Order: sequence, then C-alpha cells, then structure tokens
Amino acid sequence: MARVVVDVMLKPEILDPQGQAVQRALPRLGFEGISDVRQGKRFELEVEGPVDRAALARVRELAETFLANTVIEDFTVRVEEAAGAPDPAASGTAAEGAVA
Amino acid sequence: MARVVVDVMLKPEILDPQGQAVQRALPRLGFEGISDVRQGKRFELEVEGPVDRAALARVRELAETFLANTVIEDFTVRVEEAAGAPDPAASGTAAEGAVA
Repeated sequence: MARVVVDVMLKPEILDPQGQAVQRALPRLGFEGISDVRQGKRFELEVEGPVDRAALARVRELAETFLANTVIEDFTVRVEEAAGAPDPAASGTAAEGAVA
Repeated sequence: MARVVVDVMLKPEILDPQGQAVQRALPRLGFEGISDVRQGKRFELEVEGPVDRAALARVRELAETFLANTVIEDFTVRVEEAAGAPDPAASGTAAEGAVA
C-alpha cells in the first residue's frame, strides 16, 4: 500500500479568482511579501499493491479523465513514501501549532 | 523568489464526502485497486525574497489563521525549489498526455 498524490492546478494562463481573493486579503491580515497565490486541489489515493509503472500509468489516466479538467488544469502525480501522516516537521495543527 | 506550497487536508478522523464520492465512482469508471481517496486544497504562494526560517514561520502563521480551518484540517508547508512548472516528468496535460 502506498499513497499517490495527484495535484491539480489551473493552467498558468487561466485566471484564478480564488487565489486572487486570498492574495488581496493578505495585506489586510498583515501578511506582506507574497506576490501571487494560486489555489488548486490535492488528491491522496491509497493504492493497493506495488506502485509500479503500470499502477502509476493508471493513476495518470484517472487524473486525466476524472480528477482534472485538462482543458483548463494541469496535474502532477507523485508517490509519497509511507502511506502515513505527512512529514511531521513541516506539518502543523492548531493543537501543536509550534512555529519553527 | 521561491514557491512555497501549503497543502490543506481534512484530519484523518473527519469524514471526507468529496473523497468518498470520487472513490465510489472509480469502479464504475474501471479503476480498481484504490482503497481510499481524500481530497484537499493546495495553495502555491510566490514568496518574494529569501525563504528563510522567518518567512516560513510567517507562511505557517498564514496557513494556520487563514488557509486552513485547524479544527478539522491539518496543513503542511514546504518550499518548492524553482518557482517554475512542476516536475515535467510527473506532470501531464491533455496535449502531452504521455502515459509513462
């Protein structure tokens, strides 16, 4: 079992109103120095069995036909090693909330 | 300038109706061997200047207060090297559509 992550983002040339809304709000919230914000979707797929080339090709086919609208979106597919929690060093939840 | 990616996913214990809807549709579309699907959000932030510890701490603070609802969501923050296109080997668009 391994986790395969499919990230789906709008193509660079496509207007991203959600990202723009976030970006416009940043100065009001006191966050400077962020020149652009893009928002997309992240899918985490738990794939049974070995994630070999054939399995990855199936996930790409799934992403292309179902998870992304390839007219306006690009997608990337990558394998995340352990099908466990994301890298604890980089993650954060309110309870922990430690600021590195 | 560097790209910092913030991934926001529902906490594991929180029901993910969107992910379940995708998972239930997979057999009908002919995709077997995927035991779970979770859907979340991906934010790409173009950060001006060096992405040092202070800049990353600011992005974590932004993620915690604005991009994620930390009552039900976890988030991870990571720096993507070049603020360019994602890894071409792993990405796919309809035009290219090459199946590895």
